[in-house]
Amino acid sequence: MSLGEFELIDRLLKPLARGFPGALDLTDDAALVEVPDGLELVVAKDAIVAGVHFLEEDPPELVAGKLLRVNLSDLAAMGADPLGYLTVLARSRDIDDTWLKRFAAGLMADQKRFGCHLLGGDTVSTPGPLVLSLTILGTVPKGRALLRRGARPGDDVWVSGTLGDAALGLRVLRGLAVPEDEAITLVDRYRTPRPRLELGRHLRGLATAAIDVSDGLVADLGHILETSGVGAILDASLVPLSPVAAGIPGAREAALTGGDDYEILFTAPADRRAEVEALRAGLDHRLTRIGTIRIGQGLEVEDGAGNRLVVDRGGWRHF
Amino acid sequence: MSLGEFELIDRLLKPLARGFPGALDLTDDAALVEVPDGLELVVAKDAIVAGVHFLEEDPPELVAGKLLRVNLSDLAAMGADPLGYLTVLARSRDIDDTWLKRFAAGLMADQKRFGCHLLGGDTVSTPGPLVLSLTILGTVPKGRALLRRGARPGDDVWVSGTLGDAALGLRVLRGLAVPEDEAITLVDRYRTPRPRLELGRHLRGLATAAIDVSDGLVADLGHILETSGVGAILDASLVPLSPVAAGIPGAREAALTGGDDYEILFTAPADRRAEVEALRAGLDHRLTRIGTIRIGQGLEVEDGAGNRLVVDRGGWRHF
Repeated sequence: MSLGEFELIDRLLKPLARGFPGALDLTDDAALVEVPDGLELVVAKDAIVAGVHFLEEDPPELVAGKLLRVNLSDLAAMGADPLGYLTVLARSRDIDDTWLKRFAAGLMADQKRFGCHLLGGDTVSTPGPLVLSLTILGTVPKGRALLRRGARPGDDVWVSGTLGDAALGLRVLRGLAVPEDEAITLVDRYRTPRPRLELGRHLRGLATAAIDVSDGLVADLGHILETSGVGAILDASLVPLSPVAAGIPGAREAALTGGDDYEILFTAPADRRAEVEALRAGLDHRLTRIGTIRIGQGLEVEDGAGNRLVVDRGGWRHF
Repeated sequence: MSLGEFELIDRLLKPLARGFPGALDLTDDAALVEVPDGLELVVAKDAIVAGVHFLEEDPPELVAGKLLRVNLSDLAAMGADPLGYLTVLARSRDIDDTWLKRFAAGLMADQKRFGCHLLGGDTVSTPGPLVLSLTILGTVPKGRALLRRGARPGDDVWVSGTLGDAALGLRVLRGLAVPEDEAITLVDRYRTPRPRLELGRHLRGLATAAIDVSDGLVADLGHILETSGVGAILDASLVPLSPVAAGIPGAREAALTGGDDYEILFTAPADRRAEVEALRAGLDHRLTRIGTIRIGQGLEVEDGAGNRLVVDRGGWRHF
């Protein structure tokens, strides 16, 4: 037995739209969004596929949370405030009503937490695996969005929170043996990103470039460097590890090249270092200075003793 | 050989974003959209799945066109002007570079025709069939969007163009034998919807409710009736058929219950009939009055001689 599309919409999705008049109770094919004067809209769209980005046996609440949170993280990296989202569910045959109810419950919990509503979307059937796509809408004061293209030579390179935990969490899911409480911590970091929305807001007008760490620190810093037309030097010994990660072999490589941490990597002028440091007091996560932007191109990674490291997807070694 | 995600973005997608500064050349994870004062944003999202909504062997240009046009039709039904779109491509293994190039070429042709740009999106891999999702953004003067909820007793019911052609086109693809030039016309109507954007603009402030005919006339009029809390009487003999469709047995049933025509079905006050009729001169398609909204609920269909018809998904018969 499976809910038809209309029942699905009525029972599971309409409650997610309540409280946002422009969602029109999901009765219409499109939603209306007012963007107040002085703000501009920020829009991003991501998709995840069962068997590729998550497993169909993963808890549906967490799949919903991850789908919403990776998109919220895109908003955080732009310094934007969440407004609403649209979803596409391409349902595979294995997805039953219980799965859908738990998925909707996951969306409800997180949309309350982060202050946004469902605005619309589509549900279709597929003979293949479940495909989930989400479009997120947010707003940012006009001209104040954080972009990747503004890093300048001399800027400090900063990162929020700790890195490598999510990649280690994925390794735990794949069989890496660690004590149970550590396993729970790491898997939670992999499954439940923390979009750094508050940090993003504070960085408006302060950061010169920003990105969220989804592909890995080295790759994502590379995106900033390429788009900004600059190089950087990074001190690997400064890259922040959580206490749990620090005790696991391979943690520093995971922090440099592992993905899925969804921390904010940003650059800011060196003469505004005190302002960035002052932000720490109001946040529940660290802010760590890990490198410097310089003229040129490419990323050089040092080990803290001045030795150059070569970093690639396979890990790192002394040069 | 297949293009990696970054090459795909560089070669095929970036050209689609050129000319829209807020797309940021697709370098960032999100796009920026300015919504001018006095306008509000209209946003919709639809998905299509290979083997369900189209065939992987269909011409990729036409798949791209249909994906974009069904979303543009949602904007037309709201009276909105297109602004931009985001796509998700969940690529199956069978989708090669040639397919993607032709798909991108189809998007380019239609975005030029309809005046919008690619703003962003995501490409992922799937072990299942190709899943395509598109989010469309448009704008409408504040408070002037056409909704489903405004139909009032006494309003006329109107429809644009002709109905049933797309459903007959699908039957042709499934083996219905008709002369070749007729087959081409009908299949084209199935594969290439004509979003009625200009009509939508003219209906702002004139239509009381509107919807695009995607599920079929009876079903979509039902959506307006349910959302507006009214009933209607429809004269089946007035439902407009194309010359080609008119010669094919079953055309009138197709016009009443077949989907995919993407014409605009709307209601307007009877005392503004002359204004609706005056619109015809400037449009390249018909506008036909086919019924009347009345107090109550449900849809009654008559055959033109005053006999009541019963219409359901299986067709229609005299009551």
